[in-house]
Amino acid sequence: MRLHVPTRLRWSDLDAYGHVNNAEMLRLLEEARIEAFWSNDDGHQSAVGASTAVLDGRPGASTLTLIARQEIEYLVPIPYLRQPLDVQLWIGHIGGASLEVCYEVWSPAGAADATLFTRAATTIVLVDAATERPRRINEAERAAWTPYVDAPVAFGKRR
Amino acid sequence: MRLHVPTRLRWSDLDAYGHVNNAEMLRLLEEARIEAFWSNDDGHQSAVGASTAVLDGRPGASTLTLIARQEIEYLVPIPYLRQPLDVQLWIGHIGGASLEVCYEVWSPAGAADATLFTRAATTIVLVDAATERPRRINEAERAAWTPYVDAPVAFGKRR
Amino acid sequence: MRLHVPTRLRWSDLDAYGHVNNAEMLRLLEEARIEAFWSNDDGHQSAVGASTAVLDGRPGASTLTLIARQEIEYLVPIPYLRQPLDVQLWIGHIGGASLEVCYEVWSPAGAADATLFTRAATTIVLVDAATERPRRINEAERAAWTPYVDAPVAFGKRR
Amino acid sequence: MRLHVPTRLRWSDLDAYGHVNNAEMLRLLEEARIEAFWSNDDGHQSAVGASTAVLDGRPGASTLTLIARQEIEYLVPIPYLRQPLDVQLWIGHIGGASLEVCYEVWSPAGAADATLFTRAATTIVLVDAATERPRRINEAERAAWTPYVDAPVAFGKRR
Repeated sequence: MRLHVPTRLRWSDLDAYGHVNNAEMLRLLEEARIEAFWSNDDGHQSAVGASTAVLDGRPGASTLTLIARQEIEYLVPIPYLRQPLDVQLWIGHIGGASLEVCYEVWSPAGAADATLFTRAATTIVLVDAATERPRRINEAERAAWTPYVDAPVAFGKRR
Repeated sequence: MRLHVPTRLRWSDLDAYGHVNNAEMLRLLEEARIEAFWSNDDGHQSAVGASTAVLDGRPGASTLTLIARQEIEYLVPIPYLRQPLDVQLWIGHIGGASLEVCYEVWSPAGAADATLFTRAATTIVLVDAATERPRRINEAERAAWTPYVDAPVAFGKRR
Repeated sequence: MRLHVPTRLRWSDLDAYGHVNNAEMLRLLEEARIEAFWSNDDGHQSAVGASTAVLDGRPGASTLTLIARQEIEYLVPIPYLRQPLDVQLWIGHIGGASLEVCYEVWSPAGAADATLFTRAATTIVLVDAATERPRRINEAERAAWTPYVDAPVAFGKRR
Repeated sequence: MRLHVPTRLRWSDLDAYGHVNNAEMLRLLEEARIEAFWSNDDGHQSAVGASTAVLDGRPGASTLTLIARQEIEYLVPIPYLRQPLDVQLWIGHIGGASLEVCYEVWSPAGAADATLFTRAATTIVLVDAATERPRRINEAERAAWTPYVDAPVAFGKRR
C-alpha cells in the first residue's frame, strides 16, 4: 500500500537550468516524509491520513530522525509546476531501529500524461534525543507502518 | 482589501536557532506573491481567488518580474508550524511599471492567539523579457490590482 | 572604514532567471557578516582581519545574534561568478544592544569594470541565550567596532 | 589519484538539529564538482589545479551537465565548521556520455582527528544544450579525467 502525498514545489526549487535542482529534490522528499510520519502536533490535518503519522517531530521531542543513507534516480527533469507533485511513498524495510522509506515522484495527480520523474529511497534511524543513540522501533510504530511495507524500490541505474 | 495567502513552511526553513531563517522568510513572501499574482497556467486552483492573478509566470513568458527593493521587520521569531502561515498581502502603490507589495505575516488562521511575526514590502518591476527593459502596467493589470491598493505598510524600526 | 569580505556564490544561488535569487542575497550578506563579526572559534583564519570578529557564534554560546530588520536594494542582477563578490561592510549605528550593519555588494575585486550590485542594511540585536532578552554591547565589542562606524547606507528607492 | 577540494559550509547549511542538512550536503558536493570540472571562465583560480576543469559551465555553454543518479551515506553528522571541509573527489567510471564522480567528505585538512563524514557518488550525463540529448565525452575530456579514475566508492549501508 502506498501513501500519496501531494507535495508543492516552490519557484526557488528551480535552478538556472529551469528544472528542479537535484539537491532541492531531497527537500521535497523530506517534506513528503514529514507529512507521512510526523504526528500533527499543532492540529494540522494531514492530507494523507494520520495512521502512519506517529512520530513526534516537535522541537524538544524525545526522538530524532536521522538520515543514514539516500539513493535517488533522476529520470525526467521536473519543470515548474504549481499543482502539487504526487509523491508516492511506502516502506521498503523495517529494521530494529531504522526503516527504509521508498518514493516515486509523479506528475500532479489527475494530469493526463502521468510522468515518473524520480525514484528514491531513504534510510532513517530513530535516535533517542537524550542519549543520541539509536532506539528501537516500538510496537505502536511497527503496527502503524506495517500496512505500508512493500517491495523496496528497484533502482535501474546502479552500475 | 487584503489577500490572505496560506503559506506553508518547510522544515528546512528553520536554521540552527530553531526558527525560520531570515533569508528563508523572503522565499515565503515570494511564494505568497506568486500565488497572488501569477495566473494559474497549469490549472492550479489558487487558494486566494484568481482576480489578482493576471501575470503569466511560465518559463518563456513575455514578462519578467524583477525585485528592486525589499524591506522587512522581524517582530517575533517564527517557530516550526505545520499549519500554513496567514500571509496577508496588499498593494501599497502602483506606479508606471512597478508596484509595491505589502505583507503582514500572521500565525495560522484560526489560532487562538494571533501573532504578527513579520511585516515587509517588496517593490516589483515588470520587465519585458525580450528587451529586458521595464514595461508599463497595462489596464487589465491595473484594474485587477486596484481593489487591493491600501496604505503602505508602516515600518516601526527605521532609524 | 570598511571591511572587504570576499564572498563566494554557489551555483545554486541562481534561480530560473539565471541571476542570484533575491532571498539568496540575504544568505550572502549573512556569510559576510559572520566572517566579519564571529570569532574564529576553530582556528579559521578570517580573510578580513580579526579585529571586528569578537562575537562567539559557536553552538551553545552565550549570545545569539537576532535579525530585527533588513532593507535591500537590488541595483543590477548578479550573474554567476566564480570569483568572490567584494562585499563591503561597515557599521551605520551602534546602539545599546543592537547595531546596524551596512553593505555594498560589488563585483569581484580587481575586475576592470566595477559594478555595484546591491546595497543593504541589517539591524542585529545581541540576545542573551539564557534569558532570551537583549543584552548590552560591552566595552570590548564597542571598541572593536567603533573604527568601522560610518554614515549609514543611503537608500535611493524608498518611496 | 584524488582531488582535494576545500569546500566551505554556510551557516544556513545547518538545520534545526544543528547539523548540516542532508539535502544541503548535495549542494556541497555540487560546489566541489564545479570546482573540479568546470573551467575557470572568469579567471577564477581553481584551488585544486585546472587539469580536470575542462567543462564550460557558463550560461549558454554548449554542454549541460545533468544528474542521473546519486547515492550518499551519512556516517557522522557534520557540525558547523568555518574551515573548509576536505572533499576528496575521484572518478569511479567513465562511460560513453557519462561519468561517475565519487566523494569522501572529510573534516578540514590538518585537523588533528580526521573524520570521514560522508561518502557519495553522482552519475553525470553530458548533454548537448541544443539537442538536449547526451553527447559523447571527447578525447580531451577523457585524457584530462583518466588520471583520476579509481575504484568506485564502496558503500557500506546498501541492503
